[in-house]
Amino acid sequence: MAGAARTTEEHIVALAGGVGGAKLAHGLALARPDDPLTVVVNTADDFTLFGLHISPDLDTVMYTLGGIANPATGWGIAGDTAAALEMIGRYGGETWFWLGDRDLATHILRTERLRAGDTLTAVTARLAAALGIRAAILPMCDEPVATRVETPAGELAFQDYFVRRRQADEVRGIRLQGIEAASVPPGVAAALARATVVVLCPSNPIVSIGPILAVPGFRERLRAVDAPVVAVSPIVGGAALKGPADRMLASLGHEVSAVGVARLYQDFLDGIVIDQVDASLASRIEAMGIAVHVTDTVMRDEAGRRALADETLAFAARLRTQVGA
Amino acid sequence: MAGAARTTEEHIVALAGGVGGAKLAHGLALARPDDPLTVVVNTADDFTLFGLHISPDLDTVMYTLGGIANPATGWGIAGDTAAALEMIGRYGGETWFWLGDRDLATHILRTERLRAGDTLTAVTARLAAALGIRAAILPMCDEPVATRVETPAGELAFQDYFVRRRQADEVRGIRLQGIEAASVPPGVAAALARATVVVLCPSNPIVSIGPILAVPGFRERLRAVDAPVVAVSPIVGGAALKGPADRMLASLGHEVSAVGVARLYQDFLDGIVIDQVDASLASRIEAMGIAVHVTDTVMRDEAGRRALADETLAFAARLRTQVGA
Repeated sequence: MAGAARTTEEHIVALAGGVGGAKLAHGLALARPDDPLTVVVNTADDFTLFGLHISPDLDTVMYTLGGIANPATGWGIAGDTAAALEMIGRYGGETWFWLGDRDLATHILRTERLRAGDTLTAVTARLAAALGIRAAILPMCDEPVATRVETPAGELAFQDYFVRRRQADEVRGIRLQGIEAASVPPGVAAALARATVVVLCPSNPIVSIGPILAVPGFRERLRAVDAPVVAVSPIVGGAALKGPADRMLASLGHEVSAVGVARLYQDFLDGIVIDQVDASLASRIEAMGIAVHVTDTVMRDEAGRRALADETLAFAARLRTQVGA
Repeated sequence: MAGAARTTEEHIVALAGGVGGAKLAHGLALARPDDPLTVVVNTADDFTLFGLHISPDLDTVMYTLGGIANPATGWGIAGDTAAALEMIGRYGGETWFWLGDRDLATHILRTERLRAGDTLTAVTARLAAALGIRAAILPMCDEPVATRVETPAGELAFQDYFVRRRQADEVRGIRLQGIEAASVPPGVAAALARATVVVLCPSNPIVSIGPILAVPGFRERLRAVDAPVVAVSPIVGGAALKGPADRMLASLGHEVSAVGVARLYQDFLDGIVIDQVDASLASRIEAMGIAVHVTDTVMRDEAGRRALADETLAFAARLRTQVGA
């Protein structure tokens, strides 16, 4: 009954970090525009700059789903300018983190509402609604969590490692400061409870998906979820399509492949979508008890995002039918 | 020895509000580029918008002295854009107060430093120095003071009255919230102590110069200052060149003329510069024991600012010579 299952309403929960994750989340929204979509987003990259609370991954997901993301970079707002940042530089302020003028509106309003006592969940919902986004974009938690990167140069704040030092340092360890005090927000718990499919987007498994999974109770909920849990591998042909995930996996002792990714998710994963260039890895993953779907996983445009989302949902539906059979 | 006095180093203290005051302060800086100039600025217009501390008069004085003010408006930064504000509007935020993108840099950095515990005096000095401004721009106090405007529609916050409601309400009273807890900052006290001339710029005497004079101890220091204290009338031909000073003077029961202005400053004023169209008022002001200099007081361009500053300083020098004789 796989065919019938695909026309039933899906309650989709996607886990996402920045650009790669946002693209597949967008694909899911395009593929099932009438179905409830919840995107749970990494917030361990969040940081404070000039007193403003910046949530890079939430912004990337929000701008992408809102159709205003800069298509050239994947992050930031299309056509944005940087007059404020230029002036900040003139005042002697730091300019290593790019702040667009339109982007600043997001940071300013978010910071104002957080200071007023709103949760990050509430603030994000309000901003996303104003951009006409139907999907629920939920931070992984409302408590502050900060990814700290252990390197030969010492422990670095995430954006320091990622933006200022351009991921040049070898990553020897990751510490999620504040994670013990974090908790799964009620909206995330509710979405997981009613999910008909959970999709781990092709985001960095260590510093994007990793922090979401590390929120106390999240991983247990994912293991217990009554729906197929599928991932899309961010590693294609032994390399990350974007960002330092490949080098990070290697330096932390993981295999730099879809196999290495599957291993990190092994305790809850039902299936993984891998690229056709990695087809030969399928048997090793299947030996772990994880189903594999092989396809073109590189999302070159909106049609590509939607196609990958369609294939991922169909794959999950097949797994559901098998489980239910 | 008036001629000799004019070549001696002047320690100039100017009191200023927004646009009109900033123009004469700029004229003073142009007229005596090598002499110490201290501009004491009204901060009772300061307010918080989107969590950002905005100091409209400090900004206007700083941008004007820094040579980056918008020549069309007198406030804001030349060539500034409003992409952030447009985006704030898209998010449903209030857009009645114009925020330029470059301007936002000022608000963001000021707010950051104030939250970090710096005084407004220290923050302003840092920003002004970065813009290459030699003059000392000093807030009238470091404590928060807020002008509240009593109107038939009730008591309004100053920017609500001034910007949002476009000064349409009749002003029945002014309340300076927080003024009792304010104090003259050390830098302002020191500048007054060594002043060789004090100039009250042609700013609104009620809501721009008024709050400066109302800082506890300020007016007493001005009475005791060992230098000529001169004003330039902001009322020319019975009207304010800019803003609601004329209607405000009238509704509060003051004469709408240089005479009315002189009366407000009578307890400390040695001389007042009035426009040639008001020459006939001179005898009434002189009868109060205040010297009068009649000239063209409308500053149409930078040359006009400098010329008015030159005349004002020469007038003060003549008063000093008379006093010293």
